[in-house]
Amino acid sequence: MQGSDAARADSLWERLVSGDRRALARAISWCESTRDDHRRLAETLVARAAALTEVEERARIGFTGPAGVGKSTLLDVLGEHLMDRGHRPAVLAVDPSSRRTGGSLLGDQTRMTRLLRRGAFVRPSPTRGHLGGAGAHTLEAALLCAAARFEPILIETVGVGQNESEVSNLVDLVVLLLQPGAGDEIQGMKRGVLEHADVFVVTQADGERRQLAEETQSRFQGALRLIHGADGAAVGLVSSQEGRGVAELWTQIEERLSRDKATGAWSERRTRQRIEWYRSGLFSELLRMLESDPRNRRLIDEMERAVASGQRAVPDAVRIVMSTLAGKLQSP
Amino acid sequence: MQGSDAARADSLWERLVSGDRRALARAISWCESTRDDHRRLAETLVARAAALTEVEERARIGFTGPAGVGKSTLLDVLGEHLMDRGHRPAVLAVDPSSRRTGGSLLGDQTRMTRLLRRGAFVRPSPTRGHLGGAGAHTLEAALLCAAARFEPILIETVGVGQNESEVSNLVDLVVLLLQPGAGDEIQGMKRGVLEHADVFVVTQADGERRQLAEETQSRFQGALRLIHGADGAAVGLVSSQEGRGVAELWTQIEERLSRDKATGAWSERRTRQRIEWYRSGLFSELLRMLESDPRNRRLIDEMERAVASGQRAVPDAVRIVMSTLAGKLQSP
Repeated sequence: MQGSDAARADSLWERLVSGDRRALARAISWCESTRDDHRRLAETLVARAAALTEVEERARIGFTGPAGVGKSTLLDVLGEHLMDRGHRPAVLAVDPSSRRTGGSLLGDQTRMTRLLRRGAFVRPSPTRGHLGGAGAHTLEAALLCAAARFEPILIETVGVGQNESEVSNLVDLVVLLLQPGAGDEIQGMKRGVLEHADVFVVTQADGERRQLAEETQSRFQGALRLIHGADGAAVGLVSSQEGRGVAELWTQIEERLSRDKATGAWSERRTRQRIEWYRSGLFSELLRMLESDPRNRRLIDEMERAVASGQRAVPDAVRIVMSTLAGKLQSP
Repeated sequence: MQGSDAARADSLWERLVSGDRRALARAISWCESTRDDHRRLAETLVARAAALTEVEERARIGFTGPAGVGKSTLLDVLGEHLMDRGHRPAVLAVDPSSRRTGGSLLGDQTRMTRLLRRGAFVRPSPTRGHLGGAGAHTLEAALLCAAARFEPILIETVGVGQNESEVSNLVDLVVLLLQPGAGDEIQGMKRGVLEHADVFVVTQADGERRQLAEETQSRFQGALRLIHGADGAAVGLVSSQEGRGVAELWTQIEERLSRDKATGAWSERRTRQRIEWYRSGLFSELLRMLESDPRNRRLIDEMERAVASGQRAVPDAVRIVMSTLAGKLQSP
């Protein structure tokens, strides 16, 4: 890193660890940038954040569920509840489709104005990070939030499967939101969403929908008891509109996190997550280095297409790529 | 490949594609071997198998469930049913713990004597393959079975999670076996097992246990209808001892496979599986090439330990490894 870069990183870092929200937003933008100087700055800051011991102690909680289930609304109300209790929450929204980038960002920020006004941090994360897929980028953002003294870090994802398993690899706990009458739309979610969830809650339990929400709660309670055992079977009920069930939801989450810290499950999970991050980081950096030569990139892509179309058997494709790279991979 | 190697591969290949069971066993042993000449021979044969179009048409079916549920017994009876109908099944047993290698291999083969006597292929696969984890090795064995005209290929796994998601990536369908009264031991299975299953069947529905088996069937039917929708909710009932339910189970599997072929889901899945295999193959070959220099291997392992213990932040560890490798990775 050049001198001026180091000075920029130092100056932003000082503001960030003092809890400055704008410095945090800037640091996350650097993570998302494709500019080389931004990338270098982002790497420096993320490495510093990851090295802070208190960062490992700050909870990261995933919230997932189908579109329209009321994730943002619940996070808004839950965020306020947390601030009333002296917490300083951050909300990160992960959208793999990145269709959300424009309009919805505004939508979210409008819905979450109360949180923003009171000093919480709210941010959508539509892009990929430089250390791997959507998951790696969200992890970088979460580490920076934790370094900026935000806690808990609430990570909102759309229930679409692949993304869920990535996100569940970087959080301490996943909350799945279900709609009153859910069952039909659960089928629309990809597999893995249900299995990766730790806490279940039926939303919109207000007004006329309350009875339906209670029925859904008891049906899921039965199904989950069968599958996950008594431990994973608690299905909650919330009304973001009437503010009911939100305190209970937080208590449930907090108890689970405290238990995990007491039993050592927390630190085991964080260790596993770090190893996973290290391995995927190595892989994507290796690939990036190889693909920085456009000829390599073309070959790797071409072989992938040949494999997909069935024109070439997989072992052949792997052998061709490897023998082309072999000359470049020899020790000097 | 040297001349004599090519001749060995050619000779074995001819016997293998003519359906010779001993040639198939030899080829799979080569996949499991750590000897260089065996590895080269195995690569040649697997590449040839993967290039046969009919290999992509031969069904691969996973069977999973907790220990003691009766997987081998059911596969024995199902295998006989298939042979009566003119099929030529192969049974591969995957055990990630590899504790099974010695005694249980014998156990399985004793239990499956009738299958063996009638010309089926039965084989445990306790080791890792050279193109990636346990999954990659099983895929190699399955491709070789298909090239040797065995079909369907029945792949037995112990219900332990990680392995299930690997195996579900290489089969066309997963059957989950449940014990009468199941629910408690389902909790013992890792997450992901249930979500990766397509067909559910309660075993040991014979004698005194029949009623309990029926109760378990209807409990699971309800739970699964809620989770997977009507489509995924069929829970079967079998008695391997009395031979009941086995024909129905096969009909259910066959209908599902035909439907997948008709809708295009089959070929989409196989395309996805090939891409996945290509990518994991590239990754493990890259890693193998790097680690063939012991200094690289030591560094990669040392950094992983530092990351696990928290002594070093992940981005630092990745950077250190990459900067050491950088000189060796430059284009010539």
